Amino acid sequence: MQAIILAGGSGTRFWPKSREQLPKQLLQITGPGTMIQNTLDRLLPLVPASKHWVVTNEQHAIETCRQLAAQGFCASQLLAEPVGRNTAAAIGFAARILGESDPNTIMGVFPADHAIAPPEPFRDLLKQAEAVAQEGHLVTLGIQPSAPETGYGYIKQGAALDGGGFRVERFVEKPDAQTAAHYLKKGGYYWNSGMFVWKVSALLDELKTHLPKLYEQLDAIAANTLEVKGRYPYRKLNKIGREIFESLDPISIDYGVMEKSNKAVVLPANIGWNDVGTWTALTEVSTKDSEGNVVEGNVVALDSTGSIIHGNDRLIAALGVNDLIVVDTPDALLVCAKDRAQDVRKVVERIKKENHPEAVTSCTENRPWGTYTVLQKETNYLVKRIEVFPGESLSLQSHEHRSEHWTITTGTAEVQVKDDIQTLTRNQSIHIPKGAKHRLTNPGSDSLIIIEVQIGDKLDEDDIIRYEDKYDRV
Amino acid sequence: MQAIILAGGSGTRFWPKSREQLPKQLLQITGPGTMIQNTLDRLLPLVPASKHWVVTNEQHAIETCRQLAAQGFCASQLLAEPVGRNTAAAIGFAARILGESDPNTIMGVFPADHAIAPPEPFRDLLKQAEAVAQEGHLVTLGIQPSAPETGYGYIKQGAALDGGGFRVERFVEKPDAQTAAHYLKKGGYYWNSGMFVWKVSALLDELKTHLPKLYEQLDAIAANTLEVKGRYPYRKLNKIGREIFESLDPISIDYGVMEKSNKAVVLPANIGWNDVGTWTALTEVSTKDSEGNVVEGNVVALDSTGSIIHGNDRLIAALGVNDLIVVDTPDALLVCAKDRAQDVRKVVERIKKENHPEAVTSCTENRPWGTYTVLQKETNYLVKRIEVFPGESLSLQSHEHRSEHWTITTGTAEVQVKDDIQTLTRNQSIHIPKGAKHRLTNPGSDSLIIIEVQIGDKLDEDDIIRYEDKYDRV
Repeated sequence: MQAIILAGGSGTRFWPKSREQLPKQLLQITGPGTMIQNTLDRLLPLVPASKHWVVTNEQHAIETCRQLAAQGFCASQLLAEPVGRNTAAAIGFAARILGESDPNTIMGVFPADHAIAPPEPFRDLLKQAEAVAQEGHLVTLGIQPSAPETGYGYIKQGAALDGGGFRVERFVEKPDAQTAAHYLKKGGYYWNSGMFVWKVSALLDELKTHLPKLYEQLDAIAANTLEVKGRYPYRKLNKIGREIFESLDPISIDYGVMEKSNKAVVLPANIGWNDVGTWTALTEVSTKDSEGNVVEGNVVALDSTGSIIHGNDRLIAALGVNDLIVVDTPDALLVCAKDRAQDVRKVVERIKKENHPEAVTSCTENRPWGTYTVLQKETNYLVKRIEVFPGESLSLQSHEHRSEHWTITTGTAEVQVKDDIQTLTRNQSIHIPKGAKHRLTNPGSDSLIIIEVQIGDKLDEDDIIRYEDKYDRV
Repeated sequence: MQAIILAGGSGTRFWPKSREQLPKQLLQITGPGTMIQNTLDRLLPLVPASKHWVVTNEQHAIETCRQLAAQGFCASQLLAEPVGRNTAAAIGFAARILGESDPNTIMGVFPADHAIAPPEPFRDLLKQAEAVAQEGHLVTLGIQPSAPETGYGYIKQGAALDGGGFRVERFVEKPDAQTAAHYLKKGGYYWNSGMFVWKVSALLDELKTHLPKLYEQLDAIAANTLEVKGRYPYRKLNKIGREIFESLDPISIDYGVMEKSNKAVVLPANIGWNDVGTWTALTEVSTKDSEGNVVEGNVVALDSTGSIIHGNDRLIAALGVNDLIVVDTPDALLVCAKDRAQDVRKVVERIKKENHPEAVTSCTENRPWGTYTVLQKETNYLVKRIEVFPGESLSLQSHEHRSEHWTITTGTAEVQVKDDIQTLTRNQSIHIPKGAKHRLTNPGSDSLIIIEVQIGDKLDEDDIIRYEDKYDRV
């Protein structure tokens, strides 16, 4: 089996921990690693690393590769979408690429940001799904409902199959509370988990039948992929490919294929699944204290119950609060009634509309070469912590409006200023004059950390002229 | 009249904005300036700056002088207590010093951290109080109750005086709700505001009668005061004076004198007074939005009502919260049910007991020469923003465990390293090697701001050897 991990999160529901540039799958929310690391981990005993694929937005490609590198994920199996066009496009893209080498292979599709624990029943079910898929069925995992949830779509089972599972009678939209209660009582209804198993050729055939326009465009998309240069040679689309992809209709695989196909089969799944859809899900997937609070960080809670308090180093004191969500990050804070957690996306819409950058970015930004964090920004100076990963290098660049002062706090730096290249180590510093071509490289095998003080009349990320760049950003 | 401003706040009720090192009177909570600036401002049309005195804890002396300098307050009229010993000691200390030059002068006593608006009725009342005090009475301002408050002590009026006001029949402790309602209905009861007006000699006589031990020690305390060196030559106690002061019984002027004196008079006061005792007081003294929220800072509130949200630059998003207090500071956050505001001091007790530094200090620390703010602290490096006020100078010092890199971002620095002295300006930097004697001075007339990167194996404020210091800290 080949595993396709769909990592298309938009970073709204777990704001402010998640941002448009750092969605949920790239965060540690529950479990030992980030959500996508946990997803890969869970599959590895069944699917070797070499058979994993990830489909994600281009802006998350490098961070995704970086997060999965230690688990053996191969960057060239990351397919970067220029824009999100829902699951039919993402799955079609992956199926088309997989189909090139072996159309008869089985392909499992897994959202990158769900929690499943323990993993064994899930893996056992996948083996069964694989066998059913070999028969040409399109298998979807239907979660056995444990409550009358109104937040999920449901799948109604039809006739039982010999190999286990049921034909799908129909997909039903998110029900109202009464209907959900009826489904739960009656049985034979499952939550739509967004996990699928099928033969690549079977899926492509159904795409051809039910989404012929998309099917046709997949050829052109596949023909216009390229591997990027740099440490993580993921695959993205060239200009032609991007234009085609952008023109695709955004449609889900459920609506576009599964609801219409007569090959759809549902396998009942009792696998400790949680889609971790809002902050309140933490009360289901995390350890609670004696007062029913889920607490992370430097927290002192007095007379507080049923709350989720999620912070870092900063001290958070809670007094007399109940059923409250408090999420504290370096540049943004959320305080939210627990029963309004599903509306956090409305907060994000609002702050985006009001042009607050905190909807999109956080004060730590990921770059191909490492990260930077703004420690202080004033009108006439700016202080950054810059971390350069081993072997990486910023572009050869200059700035029109600022000079920079760098102090090396950790690791080794190779610094080029104009034509002069020197090696600096911890406790050394250097001045980069305004207008001077310069480059910062980490030649070592550990991270390089510098403190940069920018001085200038205009302190703007856009004030950069790039002359050379190993990540093709010139 | 001479005005004595009592600035003995301990910084617990407005935590985390207030800290032990930065109590409420030194903060901007309501009104145009800090609470103590507003207090002085309110009195200035009646009492010229040269006749103002402040009694405060020694650790707040310099910041207090700095805050009041622009209003013409004379630093040598700040009396610094080595420890707080309640109001009888503070008022006695001030009365003893004032009595040296003119025992017949009238002295008004005003807490530094109350709100009174508008100021005119207050000043008119003070003129009346001054006239009554001339007759030898000890006048206290009794606030006309507007609600059955259980948080204040009450004063019961006795016989009316010819010059206005009433003899005090008795002081009563904080009543229960039923009693408070009875007081309100019956009339003739006033809230004890802690504001007093009397002749210095009258007060000293009463101290001699009712607190003879304290009265005797005041002579020794006065004999052991000295003016400190430096920009703000406030008065503090020498070693002998400190020991005496520390040995005083902590007793309030109400309990120690007013309740026992037969010269106590209450003047009914209808002056828009608020003691701003807890965060909830902001709903009384601040402007509310259409949902009844008091909001300050970078706040986006959705479907939230009756809350106090107090932050700075960091984005705070509130969703669906009601009657909540959120106070956000760079290093600590409070989230508190509004009806628990009076228990914020319990939070401070708890975090103090657990040795969280946030009970005492904030990430910006005041020093005699200026301030510093920790921007980032890691085990092997530390980044600070240092602001040196015009004309000020850090001590000539060295560090055993760290070297420092300074970059000047604003203003002019005179930097001594070993025997070399140089002048640096914006966009210049310098390295201070480990062990080297060095000194930073601001020779300019504007603030000097530098970014300091400390590199070392031990990064500790205590790693400092001082050789010379203009503030006598060697």
